[in-house]
Amino acid sequence: MTAQSAPTIPDTMKAVIMRAPGDIVVEEVPVPHVAAPGDAVIKLAAACICGSDLWPFRGLQPVENQRMGHEYVGTVVEVGEEVSTLKVGDFVIGSFMVSDSTCEICQAGFPSHCANAGSYTGSQAEYMRIEQADGTLVVVPGGAPQDPERLADYLAASDVLGTGWFSAVAAQAGPGKTIAVVGDGAVGLSAVLAAKTLGAEKVIAFSRHEDRAQLAREFGADVVIAERGEEGAAKVKELTGGLGAHGVCEAVGTQESMDQALASCRPGGYVGFVGVSHDQKIDGQDLFFRQVHLLGGPAPVRRFLPDLIQRIQAGQIHPGKVFTSRIPLEQAAEGYKAMDERREIKVMLEV
Amino acid sequence: MTAQSAPTIPDTMKAVIMRAPGDIVVEEVPVPHVAAPGDAVIKLAAACICGSDLWPFRGLQPVENQRMGHEYVGTVVEVGEEVSTLKVGDFVIGSFMVSDSTCEICQAGFPSHCANAGSYTGSQAEYMRIEQADGTLVVVPGGAPQDPERLADYLAASDVLGTGWFSAVAAQAGPGKTIAVVGDGAVGLSAVLAAKTLGAEKVIAFSRHEDRAQLAREFGADVVIAERGEEGAAKVKELTGGLGAHGVCEAVGTQESMDQALASCRPGGYVGFVGVSHDQKIDGQDLFFRQVHLLGGPAPVRRFLPDLIQRIQAGQIHPGKVFTSRIPLEQAAEGYKAMDERREIKVMLEV
Repeated sequence: MTAQSAPTIPDTMKAVIMRAPGDIVVEEVPVPHVAAPGDAVIKLAAACICGSDLWPFRGLQPVENQRMGHEYVGTVVEVGEEVSTLKVGDFVIGSFMVSDSTCEICQAGFPSHCANAGSYTGSQAEYMRIEQADGTLVVVPGGAPQDPERLADYLAASDVLGTGWFSAVAAQAGPGKTIAVVGDGAVGLSAVLAAKTLGAEKVIAFSRHEDRAQLAREFGADVVIAERGEEGAAKVKELTGGLGAHGVCEAVGTQESMDQALASCRPGGYVGFVGVSHDQKIDGQDLFFRQVHLLGGPAPVRRFLPDLIQRIQAGQIHPGKVFTSRIPLEQAAEGYKAMDERREIKVMLEV
Repeated sequence: MTAQSAPTIPDTMKAVIMRAPGDIVVEEVPVPHVAAPGDAVIKLAAACICGSDLWPFRGLQPVENQRMGHEYVGTVVEVGEEVSTLKVGDFVIGSFMVSDSTCEICQAGFPSHCANAGSYTGSQAEYMRIEQADGTLVVVPGGAPQDPERLADYLAASDVLGTGWFSAVAAQAGPGKTIAVVGDGAVGLSAVLAAKTLGAEKVIAFSRHEDRAQLAREFGADVVIAERGEEGAAKVKELTGGLGAHGVCEAVGTQESMDQALASCRPGGYVGFVGVSHDQKIDGQDLFFRQVHLLGGPAPVRRFLPDLIQRIQAGQIHPGKVFTSRIPLEQAAEGYKAMDERREIKVMLEV
């Protein structure tokens, strides 16, 4: 089933495993290989730790001996016989959701719900296998970057930038619009970058951490608000003639963050929510009378990847700035701790 | 403050009052007059009973000595000195939400949340006063209709048609789309009419009442499904290649109807919910992973009125068919009972 394979692939590799909440180890495991005609295997150039990995790390989501990681860039080392758009040696970025990019749902812009979705092994490793490789992976023109900053930009596109971008698109960010962003993690900061890049007139970030507020400003935030909840929403209304923001990006996933997002939005406005929802209940009557457009979920990153790669190559955006730390894959446990303790915004794992 | 007034306006008039749940009376009350420069007073040609009036009637919403009615067509008999688009004698349709039609929110298409919203007295009466008359009332070209069927069409436009229309627009009804409609009351049936008129390829109605199913078919439903809940949603998926409807109109307002609507929609699809929400909780995680667009609330009927009037005058739509009963205003109590017992779909009150 293997159409092409690079000459020197080892038998085993290092991979990150979450044994239990708070318990991260790097173990030697078998290198994955093509198992179906549509698969590809890539050698990772870099991976990273996601804010959503902290939910199980903190015991807020069940976990047991789980391979981790869903953000990745790397070089194709093996392709199945039906793979037609990729060849060994291609440098690729993929989305955390596997998609064929041809089904009706993908074509409508929601590859995150591909009707023929597949899976992959965790990306916090040296190699990973990806199903539906033609649909999921996007070849980066020009190959692997020499510049480590550029590599960071590409890696960010794989999830946090694409996810922030989706929330900004769902919030209808564009010229003349005021967009508020709830959440100052890597996704929220990426949403700030996305909203500004999409032309928003005014971007309002919520943050009370100076390092994050600073990056929000670098990414284009015009105003940073320290207040939260109803007070934060009141501040947004003050800045928008009493009406509320035209659009709001929600990038946390808690009840408080959703309430704050809904309260910050004007009637007829748009809320894009991408924080992985945990124990949220939305009151139907409240939503009815607020009359905001609501769209959220796992971001259809694949939809945006070709455009994001172009913008990165044009030097228009530098999303890799969300990586405040770069450590070797072997030190993944320290990376999880640093993010859990909010010492770092986002940690890159060099492979 | 009165710029113009018709010659013969009586001192008192009949008006419907809900004294308590289940207790409807018609009493003699003073005729309202212009009280602010932007007001108008109209003599009702007809009013009607809304499904939402049944919530307090059934004791599911507090009520005490309340004037009723929010759907209306009639002739202008008095205007305030600042009213510029209306004159005494004009035949008008108004929305149940008062709006100036000029503020930023109105201009963005959401007059149901006008930043300068006003109020009105109940329309189940012989006369009513409306604030923000210029923004709220739309003059019907050609004046009052002679044909009682046409009068019914206009009255329907004032709320149920406009509300069903909003849900169909929110559900993105249009060519090539399959639209499912939850709710077979007057609003749900109007949503069927709206979805088909907007070009939907296939309209699926949920109903298990033959009279309503029949009207749904007349209004353009291609399929009527008797199943509800998860079974109903499964049926919709069967009819849509396993994906779910492109768009769903929710026109009931209960937990069950919202769950059914969400479950019937494909990922990336659109749910427009217009049933006045009662005790609904939407699970954030469920909504996140369903990844549907959600928009609901009090319909911005005013946005659609000029278009709806044109379509009615062109004979393209006959929304007045939702009125299965026409009785004199004096018999309002019987009308409430008939709707409560589901003997009638919607009752017109002739004034």
